[in-house]
Amino acid sequence: MDAHRTIDWRELDTSLCSIHRTLAVIGDKWTMLLIRDAANGVRRFDDFRRHVGVSEAVLSDRLKHLVSQEILETREYQEPGQRRRHEYRLTAKGWELFPVLVALAQWGDDHLPQPGGQPWRIEHTACGHPVRAEVHCTHDGETLGPRDTRVVRNARRRARTRT
Amino acid sequence: MDAHRTIDWRELDTSLCSIHRTLAVIGDKWTMLLIRDAANGVRRFDDFRRHVGVSEAVLSDRLKHLVSQEILETREYQEPGQRRRHEYRLTAKGWELFPVLVALAQWGDDHLPQPGGQPWRIEHTACGHPVRAEVHCTHDGETLGPRDTRVVRNARRRARTRT
Repeated sequence: MDAHRTIDWRELDTSLCSIHRTLAVIGDKWTMLLIRDAANGVRRFDDFRRHVGVSEAVLSDRLKHLVSQEILETREYQEPGQRRRHEYRLTAKGWELFPVLVALAQWGDDHLPQPGGQPWRIEHTACGHPVRAEVHCTHDGETLGPRDTRVVRNARRRARTRT
Repeated sequence: MDAHRTIDWRELDTSLCSIHRTLAVIGDKWTMLLIRDAANGVRRFDDFRRHVGVSEAVLSDRLKHLVSQEILETREYQEPGQRRRHEYRLTAKGWELFPVLVALAQWGDDHLPQPGGQPWRIEHTACGHPVRAEVHCTHDGETLGPRDTRVVRNARRRARTRT
């Protein structure tokens, strides 16, 4: 992006930056792993705890945080003879982290190879081909690398839907 | 993704998962903010320190980490009358985090609105329209939501280029 900078990034107060604010909400390793597990159908406290390998105290804290941020929502369930409990599901806002999850996974897949390979992949259900997270232009649909883009100062907030 | 799961996610050892491994490398708030700044042309120790608002000790540690992971590389420079120093630039591997950065930024932009709005945006240099990070199929190019995809067990590692 820097080849076409139109602003001096160092002069921007980036405490207002969307990346900064997103990381303030989800930029914790356990939080991202819980979101990953929720996206893959994990719903119950004990399943998160066992699968992510996180302590009860940290898990409880992170789930509360994710509910307060409306990334997860709770639903009651009750097994026979047990007390009522909550399970956790991604909200629409939480599901919109899908491109973040895919982008993180593909970078690891491309750049952190491991013996035996990646144990899972995400594919397009309809055709069985793998998916990619890519950046493209909302106008002409072109797939863009960082050198095709530039960072510009925003005079004011745009409308939420930019397509 | 869970509507079409073909595996029980809870039975996967996700310590081998690409998301997990990526977060082990970049899943620290300071690290991501340094990558963000590097993508926007920040190169020098003092500029990172001032702009990101991070202590010298943490900054030094995170820059070393990013160099050891080949996300940043160093180049020597020398100002007149000063000793030689290093500046830091993203490698090709580092630049491939571009979809992660854009995906983080757009989620914040969409879901964490703030008074006064986001101070900057990324646009397609050629046409001036905003960019989006989206997931699509490498075969038919369709833009996909999580419900259009499924997670499958990988028999073995695929070839790196999947287009």
